[in-house]
Parts: sequence; structure tokens; C-alpha cells
Amino acid sequence: MKEIVDINCDMGEAFGRWHVGDTQDSALMELISSANIAAGFHAGDPNLMDETVRLAVSHGVGVGAHPGYRDLQGFGRRRIQGTARELVNDIVYQVGAIREFARRHGASLQHVKPHGALYMEMAVNNEFAQIFIDYMRAVAPNAYVFCMAGSATERAAREAGQPVAREFYADRDYDESGSIVFTRDAGRPDPAALARKVVRACREGKVTTVTGRDIDIPFETICFHSDTLGALDIVRQMRAGLLAEGIRIAPISEILRA
Amino acid sequence: MKEIVDINCDMGEAFGRWHVGDTQDSALMELISSANIAAGFHAGDPNLMDETVRLAVSHGVGVGAHPGYRDLQGFGRRRIQGTARELVNDIVYQVGAIREFARRHGASLQHVKPHGALYMEMAVNNEFAQIFIDYMRAVAPNAYVFCMAGSATERAAREAGQPVAREFYADRDYDESGSIVFTRDAGRPDPAALARKVVRACREGKVTTVTGRDIDIPFETICFHSDTLGALDIVRQMRAGLLAEGIRIAPISEILRA
Amino acid sequence: MKEIVDINCDMGEAFGRWHVGDTQDSALMELISSANIAAGFHAGDPNLMDETVRLAVSHGVGVGAHPGYRDLQGFGRRRIQGTARELVNDIVYQVGAIREFARRHGASLQHVKPHGALYMEMAVNNEFAQIFIDYMRAVAPNAYVFCMAGSATERAAREAGQPVAREFYADRDYDESGSIVFTRDAGRPDPAALARKVVRACREGKVTTVTGRDIDIPFETICFHSDTLGALDIVRQMRAGLLAEGIRIAPISEILRA
Amino acid sequence: MKEIVDINCDMGEAFGRWHVGDTQDSALMELISSANIAAGFHAGDPNLMDETVRLAVSHGVGVGAHPGYRDLQGFGRRRIQGTARELVNDIVYQVGAIREFARRHGASLQHVKPHGALYMEMAVNNEFAQIFIDYMRAVAPNAYVFCMAGSATERAAREAGQPVAREFYADRDYDESGSIVFTRDAGRPDPAALARKVVRACREGKVTTVTGRDIDIPFETICFHSDTLGALDIVRQMRAGLLAEGIRIAPISEILRA
Repeated sequence: MKEIVDINCDMGEAFGRWHVGDTQDSALMELISSANIAAGFHAGDPNLMDETVRLAVSHGVGVGAHPGYRDLQGFGRRRIQGTARELVNDIVYQVGAIREFARRHGASLQHVKPHGALYMEMAVNNEFAQIFIDYMRAVAPNAYVFCMAGSATERAAREAGQPVAREFYADRDYDESGSIVFTRDAGRPDPAALARKVVRACREGKVTTVTGRDIDIPFETICFHSDTLGALDIVRQMRAGLLAEGIRIAPISEILRA
Repeated sequence: MKEIVDINCDMGEAFGRWHVGDTQDSALMELISSANIAAGFHAGDPNLMDETVRLAVSHGVGVGAHPGYRDLQGFGRRRIQGTARELVNDIVYQVGAIREFARRHGASLQHVKPHGALYMEMAVNNEFAQIFIDYMRAVAPNAYVFCMAGSATERAAREAGQPVAREFYADRDYDESGSIVFTRDAGRPDPAALARKVVRACREGKVTTVTGRDIDIPFETICFHSDTLGALDIVRQMRAGLLAEGIRIAPISEILRA
Repeated sequence: MKEIVDINCDMGEAFGRWHVGDTQDSALMELISSANIAAGFHAGDPNLMDETVRLAVSHGVGVGAHPGYRDLQGFGRRRIQGTARELVNDIVYQVGAIREFARRHGASLQHVKPHGALYMEMAVNNEFAQIFIDYMRAVAPNAYVFCMAGSATERAAREAGQPVAREFYADRDYDESGSIVFTRDAGRPDPAALARKVVRACREGKVTTVTGRDIDIPFETICFHSDTLGALDIVRQMRAGLLAEGIRIAPISEILRA
Repeated sequence: MKEIVDINCDMGEAFGRWHVGDTQDSALMELISSANIAAGFHAGDPNLMDETVRLAVSHGVGVGAHPGYRDLQGFGRRRIQGTARELVNDIVYQVGAIREFARRHGASLQHVKPHGALYMEMAVNNEFAQIFIDYMRAVAPNAYVFCMAGSATERAAREAGQPVAREFYADRDYDESGSIVFTRDAGRPDPAALARKVVRACREGKVTTVTGRDIDIPFETICFHSDTLGALDIVRQMRAGLLAEGIRIAPISEILRA
């Protein structure tokens, strides 16, 4: 049973004029403990990155880089062929940019979480995961890698001794293998039900799959998506539920280094 | 009279498949002491940045960021309207990226030199220069700013105590005010004449203007352009001329910190 | 006094995932007669362009190309240096793309209206206006050019015999010279007042300036901006006001060719 | 046995400042009969497109659109996930742009040949091929589709009655199935051997595979790549070989419509 947990969310995913989520980003930033900040390839421009990092720092939220495929039109959700080396170079570039904004606002890089299709690719591509972790070991040995439990990313990080945090996907369903069931249209989930699911995962380490069975689910950070319908209400009820159970919420770097 | 001087050159200015200058970049890197490395907005992609930084480090060449306007088509040579704050955010982004590649290859950021139209804009835009120097003071207090003597950039850097290096433009002509005379088509300059001009500038601190007068020319680093016709021959004769006069060539950070 | 007038509005100005205005675009399309459709450089991606052209055609709305500077981040509102020839090539590219989607949906190109800073640049740059009009004469001699009354664009079009329509800016204020007074924050205009202003401009050909004087205002098409606060209510009241006065609303091509 | 054949080549594949191939494009344009002109997504900017189309028209070379994935960095050689509908919208956009430049220079669109990974995707993706051919039927019923013999593209075109031309790949090797054998590094092929291979394919309709067997090879247009080492010499010897055999070289539209 957890006494303390991290809540992470993607942030700064607008671009240029298309500032869809300012207000929401501001509101969400008060409720989460780690921010995955878009770094310009799938979303996020330098002005928004500066603003989002500043916002995170001012709320004591851990600053994470959220690098994606170079594909504004597809929002980083379309797989793009590329060698492992190329993909890591794209990540180095984006992480460096986020880190510079973090430094500018007096913070350091807490974690890296690849975005969308790049996250999925690393989960299954051993060579890509390995070169990425080599890079992290060399230049950011204290930064956490956020990943799926059991992924190639996790394995590479563990073997190298890189700090790693497994995610629990609050607004996604699980199958019996512990994998996420992707659904195009998730509809508007019931915030109270999600809060109960999260609290139970923290207390018992278990989640109920789409087939009705309970499985063990190991994790250190709770992920939810700001574009899930009712995201703000979801995270509010999730927080309230956790706090009511005496579970504290804090950035991963404060939890695991303690 | 100088006993030691820096030679800087733009590097890594290809993009994607258009690897125009590999061979030349390799050859030039053996002859210069500071590299201004394109950072993705006007030229340079993450793969090339990685390769160019690695090449610089392996030759003991100082690693500099060369941020430009976001304009691949115009190669950063077209002015783009923008607030000072926006322009600095673009620079922070690009400097961060270069710095991450430098860190990956065991080096630190030696200097920042804006590219093309952005360099010219900062030279005359006090607000832009000031916000840029504020950023440098905060996160890169030991990195040099490369600039035009007498520019807004130089003034802001000096007032703030940021390390600064003025450039001597080896392959450009000067007018009596000490400004560069821009010519669309510079033709193919005579390497021997350029070498003599550079040696004289180092020994006497003087250059002859297009009108035939001599003017004082203060500088700490010599700039030449890899796309000047015969660039490789130019830098070879320049080096030979300097060494023959007993003038050493070294990265700016070794010269000025000594 | 006009018996018939055109109402034009910018459409399809989202990008990729950032589909800010779908619902609004659908609603507005029922109320306007000419659509200026973003063509990919400042906003608009091929999927959205296809959808927006289809929507316009299905409502009998005239299809116009709305080319902008290549600057997604700045939304085409930042001037970018460039030769007249380069700027026209950018326009040719974008007009061609819109035209192809129009053809696909059984329509032809009704008009071209440059966007934002490109519209302003053409208004004052004679060489740019001339090369643009030369291009229009050669390949789209029946398409209208939307422009500011008295601009370089209008002059070049008239001299060449290219169809031209001057705009009345419903949601902007005029000074005594007939120029628009730019205000950063226009606030939320009163729809009823705008409707009266438009009706009067149609009936009397006059508008009251910010200094309280009346000036003559020649125009053939009414422009309003979909990002003006309350845009939908504004255009509804404007339409109602015009229809109540017996003024018909129709695409420019139906008005002027009649 | 052919009395007349088309030779096609990719053209205008530079971008912005990176004008790698001007001279070569000029030289090649005198030797080919159909040009596949890059349309801005994988290479080619509006200035270069204008110049390349003009060059093609001035040499009586058929103007073809060469649309690619939106990936300048990867030069359109990396597959990008996307629905068939999205991919076709990307093509419509690019074809429209090329067509507008063609119109500007008094020409019409002769053919469309997707580039790189997009060409390969269409060859095996029936839905994509079908939606593409539907679009061609609707708006360019007389334009040729260049494709691989036996591909999904060919099947869709034939069923719909769209003009189609199969390619013979002069600088690639075939396996016994008639497929191309991809090799990373093709080295520098022997121009005389390639010329003999092409002449034989035209006279006998046969090619020798990498395993030494002869297979039948049906085609209407010969493709070679301007980035194959020695491209200029290859096409010169190929032309000379064909002409020596009394085989004429002409744009596909003149051959098949005759």
C-alpha cells in the first residue's frame, strides 16, 4: 500500500495561436505533481514551453520533457519510420530544449516521457530503448524515465541503473495481460469511478480488467490525459479520493529519492 | 598586437538528406578553433547536430550554438517580425538543444552566436539584446557572446558582465564607420590577400576600408564563412599566415580565460 | 445604395489536432457567402482544407484561397522579408492547392485574399502586387482579388483588368483617411451596433470614423473575422439587418458578373 | 518491340538554399522526356517548383507531380502512418500546387508519381490506391499514373480507366518475381551495361534478374534516379543506345495518346 504517489499529465500541448488549453493547463497544474511538457515536435512552441515550465516550477510540479515525433499535423500519434539512432537524436534535441527552459526558471529536469507513438515504439524496440537509456545515463543520470510496466524501456533502464517510474493509466482500461485496451472514443468517463479505481490501485496494487478479472498492477506514477473528457473533474476527484485515504501526492523525485 | 586569436566558422548548416558539406565540414574543423553549430531552425537537424558537435569536440574546437530564425526555406536570412521575448524564446530553445548534444559528447557550451538576420536584428534591437543577455547571465554566465563591435549585443553583454567576443570578418569588406559592406556576389576572394588582411588586423589592429582609409578594428575572434568561394583554401592560408607570425590559434574560452 | 452584397469570412484556420473551430465553421458557413480558406502556410492542413472546401460548396458559398506567410507559429501575422517573386511563388503554391480541392468538390476558384501580414504587405508593395496580378491574369482571369480600397493591390488589379472586390471591415474601426485603426484588444463588440454600421454602409456608402466624422466608403464585400468575440451573433444580426432592408446576400461572383 | 519510349526522372529535389542540383537538373532536363517534380513535402519549395516546371516546359518535357510524405528531414523515405484518406489529401494538396505552376507556364499536368515511401505504400495499400484513383478520375482524368507493374496502384487505375504507365527501373536490379532488389549502396553502375539493359528491355521486353534468369518485364516508361552515381552519364548512354536502335524518346502523353 502506497503512502505517497505521483500524478503526471501532459502539458503545453498547444501550438502558436492555437492556445487551446491555457486556462485548463493553469487549473490542472494546481492538481498534478509532474508535468510532461511538449517540446516542439508534436506540439509546443518555444513561447508556450517557457510559459508552461514557469507555471510548473511556480506550483512545485516536477518538470518533465515530453518529446514526440516531428509531426505537428499528426500530433505525434503517427508512427514514423526511423533508425533507433535517429529517434534518439530527436529526443536529445527536445530534452535539451526543455532542460534549458527549466534551467532558466531555476529548476532541473525531473523526468523524460516520450509522447504518443514514440512512447509506444520505445516500449517494444529494444535497440531504441537501449540507445535512449545510454544517453540518459551519460547526461541525465538522476532523471526519471516514465514508462509502461514490462516495456523495453523499463528493462533497459533497470539494467543500466537509470531511475525509472512505471505508469498507472487512470483513464484507460486494462486487459488481462496488463496491457492497455485502446479505444478510439473513450466517451466521458465517470470521475467517481476513476477515483475509486485509482485509490484501489494505490491501496491494493490491483485493477479490474475489461474482462472482469483482477490483476496486479505495479506503478509509481499515475498518468491521466488532459484531453480526456472531464479531465479537470477527474483529477479533482482522484486527488480528493487519494487524500481522503491518507495518500500524499508528490513529484516522483521527492517520492523515490526520499 | 595579438599573440593568440580564435577563428570561428558556421558549421553543420545542411539539413536532412541535403548533406552538402560533410567533407568540407570535416576538413574545416581541423583548421578552426570555434564552431557555430546550426540548431535546427534555419539549418541543422538533430542527426547532423549530433555529428557536428562530436566532430568539434574530437578536434578540441569550442562548441557554440548558432540559433536562427525559424525559416528553413530562407536559411535564416530573412527578417521575421516578432517581439523581443518571442525571439529570445526561440534562442533558448535552440541553445538548449545544442547544449544537450555538447553534454552528450562531454563538452560544455563555449559560446552563442545568432545567425544571419537574427544576428543583425540583435545588433540594433536593444530590448532583444537585453532579454537575451539576461537569459545568458541566468543560465550560461561563462559562455561567450559573439557579436559585432559596437552593437547593441556588445553593449548589453558588457553592462551585465557577460563574457563577450567581438568578430573580425575576414571575408567581408569594411566601410569607414567600421560597418560591413554587404555585397550580393562577393566573387572568389584572393586567399593570400585575405591572409595578409587578417595578419595585419591581428598585428596592428587595423583594416583598410573600401574607400582606402585605415581604421582601427577591435576584435577577439576571426569569422569567415564556409560558403565563401574557396573557403578551405582561405582558412589554410590564413592559418599559415598567422602561425608564421607567431600568432597562436585557440578557442576563445582558452584565450580570454587565461 | 446596394441591393445585393457579399459577406466574406476566414475559414479553416485550425491545424492538425487543433481543430478549434469545427462547430463554429459549420455554423458560420450557413451565414456567409464567400469563404477565405486557409491554405497550409499559416493555418489549415490538407484534411481540413478538403473538409472546409466541401462545406463551402455544399452551402453555395464562394470558394476563395487565403494564402499566408509560411509561419504556423506566428499564424501569418508576422511580416517575413522576401522578394516579390518569392512571395508570389508562395501564393501560387497555396492557390493551386485550394483550387485542386475546389475542383475535387466540383467548384472553381472564386477569389483570392492574402492573409494577415501578407495582405498588408501587398497593399503597400507595388512590385509584389504587380507580379501577383500578372499571375492571376495568366491563370485565373475570372477570379476576384479581395483587397483594401486604395491599396497597391487594387491599383494593379484595375490596371490589368482583373476582377477586384474592395472590402468593408465590419468589425474594425476607420480613421478619417479611410484606413483601419488597429487595436490589440477589440473587446466584444455590440452586434446590434455592427449590424447598423453595415446596413448604413450598404445603404448610404458611409461610415463614421473614430473621430466622429462621416466618410465615403466604397466596397463590394463585407469582411468580418471569425475570431472576433461573438462572431456568430455578429454575423446573424448583420444578416438579419441586411435582409430586413431588402439587401440580398450572395457570393461576389454572382453579384458582379450579373 | 517498342518504337518509342518515355524516360522519367525525379527533378527539383532541393530545398531553399540547399540547391544541390541546379546544374545537373538543367543538364538532365535536356535528356529526359517526363519530369517528376517534387512538390514541397519531402523536397522542393515554391521557388524551385516554379523554376523546375518552367525548365521542363521549355524543353518539351512532360510535367508530373511527385508528391511525398510531409517529411523534409527524412526526404520522404520514411513511412508515416496515416489513414488512406489523409494520405490522399496530402497528395491532392501537392498535385494542386504543381498543377498551378504548370498552368502558369502554359502546360498541363501530364502525370502523377508518388515519391519514395509513399510510392511503396500505395503499391500495396488497396484502399489508398482506390481513393487516390477516385480523385484522379474526378479531377485529372487524362493524367497518367506512374506505378510499379502489378501494384495496387496499377490495378486500381486499370479498373477505373485512368491512364497508367508502368515503370522500368533502369538503375535497379530485379528478382525473379519482377520485384526490385533494394540495396543501400548501389555503388557506381556501369553506364554502358545499363544502356544495354534498357535497350534490351525495350526490344525484347526482358530483363535478367539477380539470379541470372530472364523474366518478362512490361513497361511504358523508363525510370532512373538523378542521385545514382554517374546519373548524367547513364542517361546519355541510355539515350544514345535507344536512338541507335531507332527507338524514339517522347513524353508518355505523346506516346500513349498517339
